[in-house]
Amino acid sequence: MSKDVVITGNWLDSVSFDDKGLVNVVAQDHISKRVLMVAWMNREALEITASTGFATYFSRSRGKLWHKGEESGNQQKVKEIRLDCDGDVLVLMVEQVGGIACHTGRESCFYYALEGVPGEKPGWVAKDPVLKNPSDMYGKK
Amino acid sequence: MSKDVVITGNWLDSVSFDDKGLVNVVAQDHISKRVLMVAWMNREALEITASTGFATYFSRSRGKLWHKGEESGNQQKVKEIRLDCDGDVLVLMVEQVGGIACHTGRESCFYYALEGVPGEKPGWVAKDPVLKNPSDMYGKK
Repeated sequence: MSKDVVITGNWLDSVSFDDKGLVNVVAQDHISKRVLMVAWMNREALEITASTGFATYFSRSRGKLWHKGEESGNQQKVKEIRLDCDGDVLVLMVEQVGGIACHTGRESCFYYALEGVPGEKPGWVAKDPVLKNPSDMYGKK
Repeated sequence: MSKDVVITGNWLDSVSFDDKGLVNVVAQDHISKRVLMVAWMNREALEITASTGFATYFSRSRGKLWHKGEESGNQQKVKEIRLDCDGDVLVLMVEQVGGIACHTGRESCFYYALEGVPGEKPGWVAKDPVLKNPSDMYGKK
């Protein structure tokens, strides 16, 4: 068996951030392996995630760091960080506090399944239950 | 228990393609649930994937459709297509023909793990074995 290959140098320099300074990140439950969400990090978010052990993303819509769970309490404890062959996508294996990753109150953001009926066009069907009312997660407006 | 929510209309219109006409796609092994790779699709690639049952992506580097496995034979049979709450990321549950998704001859593209030593900076370590020599997958140049 060959020895593990190690990339030397600053680990952050091995990550290929895009022209907006962002890297694509998949968060996966470390036990069920379900994909919970896909988001983005800039270099600072990745550094904070690695040093604190809790996922911090970069919100493209709000243009700032987003400490996952800062409002809902549903933080993500990071168990492992993986990088792909091209260096431009990360997978985080996480423990999802509260069991809810999605702002809709579901476990995962990927709750729409494409279902087809023979001879008809397929359609998106929401398959997963809402575990908590979003207004209870974020406070009523 | 509430009834499943269904999005009506053309299913392709519910997908939010970005300003380059692309949507982010995670391919996950349907049994082990391992994330195999992350790539992109345009509308045509997604339509072909759904109608043929085999993953077709859009290669950003080559600027054209990429029928996964067209050279290596390592196609991806699609078992399920999921869409996220924002409509801008897909997860494909696939059967990976040949057990190799990565062009390096590994099962998954995510073979680098971030490993740390207390008191020292972490580093990327290649954890997974090469199952097949890439020159045997793509032919010698």
